[in-house]
Amino acid sequence: MKLASLTSGRDGKLVVVSNDLAWYADAAHIAPTLQAALDDWDRLLPDLQNLSTDLEHEMIPMRRFHEHQAAAPLPRAYQWADGSAYVNHVALVRQARAAELPDSFWHDPLMYQGGSDGFLGPRAPIPLADESWGCDFEGEVVVVTGDVPQGATREEALAAVRLVGLTNDVSLRNLIPGELAKGFGFFQSKPASAFSPVFVTPEALGNWWQDGKLHRTLMVDLNGKPFGRVAAAVDMTFDFGTLIAHAAKTRALGAGTIIGSGTVSNRDADGGPGKPIAEGGVGYACLAELRTVETILGGAAVTPFLKSGDTVRIWAEDDKHHPIFGVIEQTVG
Amino acid sequence: MKLASLTSGRDGKLVVVSNDLAWYADAAHIAPTLQAALDDWDRLLPDLQNLSTDLEHEMIPMRRFHEHQAAAPLPRAYQWADGSAYVNHVALVRQARAAELPDSFWHDPLMYQGGSDGFLGPRAPIPLADESWGCDFEGEVVVVTGDVPQGATREEALAAVRLVGLTNDVSLRNLIPGELAKGFGFFQSKPASAFSPVFVTPEALGNWWQDGKLHRTLMVDLNGKPFGRVAAAVDMTFDFGTLIAHAAKTRALGAGTIIGSGTVSNRDADGGPGKPIAEGGVGYACLAELRTVETILGGAAVTPFLKSGDTVRIWAEDDKHHPIFGVIEQTVG
Repeated sequence: MKLASLTSGRDGKLVVVSNDLAWYADAAHIAPTLQAALDDWDRLLPDLQNLSTDLEHEMIPMRRFHEHQAAAPLPRAYQWADGSAYVNHVALVRQARAAELPDSFWHDPLMYQGGSDGFLGPRAPIPLADESWGCDFEGEVVVVTGDVPQGATREEALAAVRLVGLTNDVSLRNLIPGELAKGFGFFQSKPASAFSPVFVTPEALGNWWQDGKLHRTLMVDLNGKPFGRVAAAVDMTFDFGTLIAHAAKTRALGAGTIIGSGTVSNRDADGGPGKPIAEGGVGYACLAELRTVETILGGAAVTPFLKSGDTVRIWAEDDKHHPIFGVIEQTVG
Repeated sequence: MKLASLTSGRDGKLVVVSNDLAWYADAAHIAPTLQAALDDWDRLLPDLQNLSTDLEHEMIPMRRFHEHQAAAPLPRAYQWADGSAYVNHVALVRQARAAELPDSFWHDPLMYQGGSDGFLGPRAPIPLADESWGCDFEGEVVVVTGDVPQGATREEALAAVRLVGLTNDVSLRNLIPGELAKGFGFFQSKPASAFSPVFVTPEALGNWWQDGKLHRTLMVDLNGKPFGRVAAAVDMTFDFGTLIAHAAKTRALGAGTIIGSGTVSNRDADGGPGKPIAEGGVGYACLAELRTVETILGGAAVTPFLKSGDTVRIWAEDDKHHPIFGVIEQTVG
């Protein structure tokens, strides 16, 4: 089953979307918003699934689904916690600034509490007030959970995954060093993230969802050119069950919690830092990683951060090259 | 006007509470929840204020208000961002571990993104799974904002303050050093916070709300004994206007954002660290500060963190010694 929220008010209007993303059926008679559906998931799921089945069989009134009419599936959420599960990415960043990577980073997930009071729709411009902040995109996989009790095991955590999707976790790179030096984590350096038009149940992903990982390639284009073709299930040190259990160690998580993977990142086949696509590599899911590789190989970053007018596109495809979650496509404005 | 949420479902039931906290009137016909009221504040405020006036004049059906029936005014919120506005507190903590306090800390607010997917009611036990985590209370002032545009000035930020209240920002002190060393800020070390039974509009606070500060004493008792009597408007380096503007520098803030002051902390009259109440000082709003002072003066912390059965009480009083926001009273369970 695929769910989306059409732009409407602060929380959007819940719709069920056809598997090919061409059609939608209004789900307001079941739940007005996705958060309302998540709040009462076990009771409402059968009705939503029936609606989804009827939509696939064209047995009910349906309308064309246009991704540009979609808000983020959760236009605002009660929690957005972003991990950094691709430790390769962290290791590269540290290597570039000659900082040590503690061994614990391979065993204890990094995670930060993100702002969740307002997300960007999949086609919304990135509202950047100052280019000197060093605006970057970050292509990530996310899951939405139901209620997770404090102290949940990895298995309990995985069972609480309700939906899977993608995000562009917008980052202001030049504000990060100052904020991290203050010791309280990210705040100003993490403005609103954007999400894929559609979130999908794990069941509907079939074999693409295994072991708490999305077994698809995350596609990233920058200004119309391939920038990243990174495998989301490869080099993911911590699966989503482990990330969710980490988040729930000392407190319960409320239904509708969004957990992010951190920037998807693959090592090169030779074990070293990944190469750009133009050089035969799989590329990157953020500018910072390319800049890091440039620093390691050439002594300095060459690729600039995003400027006004730059466009980033993030998606994942099925075997017929159709987007699974729709497409995030944002222009810096 | 004073607002509360009676325990009901995930978001509580909005009620208007009389100024003396003795009575309430159901506000569900105006807005079912406090978040719904904040989402449409300008339109609903006159109706809420009329209800409040009618309640004070006993012109409408009213029922006894019992604080133990209250949830947190926002039982869950889209944003909880906690500052550290009493730099004296930060300076003491740094002094105790012989760490330098950067001069920038006096000009650039510290703020972290807190978890907001589930808050504790004012009488809820603190669900501590492991005493070795070093559980502490933190008495703070909070404000709830309306929508704040990106780049808001301090004055615009102050005008967006809708409600004022108190929090017990529960902290797991022994988990903090490890988390801060990882560089991503607090996560497991900050479980659910509790809030005062009642939040109050700035207008209803009159002279107690000036210059973006609460001009009242924050009262803290531990196990029935006075622990802190700290002046919330004294030694507050950053007022709430400055804190909100800091949060809104790179992104808009959604209605219902809760901004915290950080632990209220006063210097001693001689300029040094504050003394315990038993020694003639104003005491502290968290255990960590007392432990810090013990470390500075005696070389080691003596006071233990919270244990099962310990009770903390946090409130502020009017001139007749009646609680303004009701009382947070929590037992570690």
